[in-house]
Amino acid sequence: MPDLHQHRQQFPALAHKTYFNYGGQGPLPQSSLNAILDSYHQGDRQGPFSLAQGQWETGIIQKLRGAIAAELQAQPQNIALTENVTAGCNIALWGIDWQPGDEILLGDCEHPGIVGIVQEIAARFDVKIRICPLFDTLNGGDPTAAIAQHLTPQTRLLVISHLFWNTGQILPLKEICTLCHSQNILVLVDAAQSFGMLPLDLPGLGVDFYAFTGHKWWCGPAGVGGLYISTEAIAQHRPTFIGWRGVTQWETTTEVALAQDARCYEVATSAYPLYVGLMEAIHFHQQWGDTASRYQQICDRSAYCWEKLNALPQVQCLKATPPASGLVSFQVDTAQSHSDIVKALEAQGFCLRTIRFPDCIRACTHYFTTTADIDQLAIALTTLT
Amino acid sequence: MPDLHQHRQQFPALAHKTYFNYGGQGPLPQSSLNAILDSYHQGDRQGPFSLAQGQWETGIIQKLRGAIAAELQAQPQNIALTENVTAGCNIALWGIDWQPGDEILLGDCEHPGIVGIVQEIAARFDVKIRICPLFDTLNGGDPTAAIAQHLTPQTRLLVISHLFWNTGQILPLKEICTLCHSQNILVLVDAAQSFGMLPLDLPGLGVDFYAFTGHKWWCGPAGVGGLYISTEAIAQHRPTFIGWRGVTQWETTTEVALAQDARCYEVATSAYPLYVGLMEAIHFHQQWGDTASRYQQICDRSAYCWEKLNALPQVQCLKATPPASGLVSFQVDTAQSHSDIVKALEAQGFCLRTIRFPDCIRACTHYFTTTADIDQLAIALTTLT
Repeated sequence: MPDLHQHRQQFPALAHKTYFNYGGQGPLPQSSLNAILDSYHQGDRQGPFSLAQGQWETGIIQKLRGAIAAELQAQPQNIALTENVTAGCNIALWGIDWQPGDEILLGDCEHPGIVGIVQEIAARFDVKIRICPLFDTLNGGDPTAAIAQHLTPQTRLLVISHLFWNTGQILPLKEICTLCHSQNILVLVDAAQSFGMLPLDLPGLGVDFYAFTGHKWWCGPAGVGGLYISTEAIAQHRPTFIGWRGVTQWETTTEVALAQDARCYEVATSAYPLYVGLMEAIHFHQQWGDTASRYQQICDRSAYCWEKLNALPQVQCLKATPPASGLVSFQVDTAQSHSDIVKALEAQGFCLRTIRFPDCIRACTHYFTTTADIDQLAIALTTLT
Repeated sequence: MPDLHQHRQQFPALAHKTYFNYGGQGPLPQSSLNAILDSYHQGDRQGPFSLAQGQWETGIIQKLRGAIAAELQAQPQNIALTENVTAGCNIALWGIDWQPGDEILLGDCEHPGIVGIVQEIAARFDVKIRICPLFDTLNGGDPTAAIAQHLTPQTRLLVISHLFWNTGQILPLKEICTLCHSQNILVLVDAAQSFGMLPLDLPGLGVDFYAFTGHKWWCGPAGVGGLYISTEAIAQHRPTFIGWRGVTQWETTTEVALAQDARCYEVATSAYPLYVGLMEAIHFHQQWGDTASRYQQICDRSAYCWEKLNALPQVQCLKATPPASGLVSFQVDTAQSHSDIVKALEAQGFCLRTIRFPDCIRACTHYFTTTADIDQLAIALTTLT
């Protein structure tokens, strides 16, 4: 395990800045940027378009699927690479054979992009949206029970996040999947905040669709993500956005056959150097420690952050107990808006963000966040507010 | 206008290689790679996720839409940025309110990825696919008349390329759009080979959907493309893959409003440094000459290539006359397969590709292709075959 302070030096973005926006985007390790640059040089040497470069690209696609699958305890044939989390959610939502009267149960802490997809599906196919109140279970109550109460015989899909981007709450996904599957309901999970933070075993959790990105907790380059689809879900699901990456046979000019596994969801040309960048970012974190150690350290740091912030008289963390994730959301009781506070913090070199629902500020701690970072944030908040 | 040989030095991929795969992927100018790298450094300095970096990203998205719109004589609000051509074709195809019995007229020279989308649309919505024989019009015959003969009262969409990737033929798009619109039929154009090569005026052509990529004739980085949608087409069309980039209002946790222009088709986080790379590539070519001059030079070079290759006894170009594009497709009459010839050429530093339908080899000439490149190719072909 490399020394943490040395390890941190490998993130150029962390120099001269106190960074708490890992849930927005993680800083790219220098080795990841180097790998991206090397890939462009490699493309210049043997391409950009040649038989040799084509083989290299095919290899990179397979390797990245493999590297991601290994982190999810899944098989590469259940992984489709995408541009971002939302693309994965779109693939899942549009591939279901919707019938008029079907219902989607949507959590009340979901990202507006996901809400947008669900709205359009509802309008196009005469599908009903039900909202499941899960925000209220942050400090008590049972999310699985809340979901159970909102399922109906018409529900075909539950759409939730594994880890809420607004409050940092983690849902008991295995229990929820068991509940839904017992009623023949599919489960689509927005994994924007959980992928790269939580130790994951997707077949064990039993989730049908798990959409993720590499640019947040894994600190890969923006523009590379993916979707896990269980073998059972693939069998009853269709690809929507389609392209040559999913084509396995082309025997006449006007007919093609698509892959029978998750490759059928991949579309066309992507920025393969960024695939190499994400693989290197994954490798970089593994050098420091395994996912369980990193998650433990993330929680240690967020607990420290939660305590320090809660100790400030004007600050109230949303969670009543230390979070089980790297997200610490809090409200500040002053005349200033949260937006003004975040602006003022940024002017002093602290990167945090506001959340709209509920109106709060979010600080994220990664395994390489230092207690000094957090101490300084507490001081800055005290001075500012 | 910079000296062409000096200008060519700015493509590292062209060193020690004779390159004819511009229709597959263009080489990245050094200034474009520098701009990409600078953007990553800029992200490190003020982000990666901060208010300042968010403003920068919003600006970059707008600037790239503007730079592309200017090349198409179009308005930025008619441009959606995508990952590649195929994504744009998907957006167009899935956003039409298909009814059972509707027909799609599909050209017989289209890319397998596009065939895959049309097949799935047909299966999902009980839509019929008709094939329009256009390959046979390469050396005579009238493509518009061929299309006219295959339209029916049920046809709702024509799907064709502006410039065929297999034969290099250019379709009379304005005439075709006028024909189709007179029968209330929309026109979706795969512009993979035309964008960055032909001088374009999309409102003048009257096309409804024009899907393109920056990584072929514009020599931008792979992974950035777009879709032009006419204002009339947007008004009768729906977004399918949706995300936060298209959301303009979010007033409650469970309801959003989408943009009324082409932004509604953009999904979520992309690799913005690559957007900067494409803008720089466009700028780089403009420094040498305007689109009309570059296109003229492309045609001069392809005419030279066509003559040189046709002069070889064993070679027959598909086109009976010099092409009006940078694509020169040809067949070689030997015991070797075209695939074996391309492999042998690549081993000698010549990058070309095979085409499957019709079985041939394709050589692409850009405005910076030299006559020496072409002379050497002719010699290599003579020696090899």
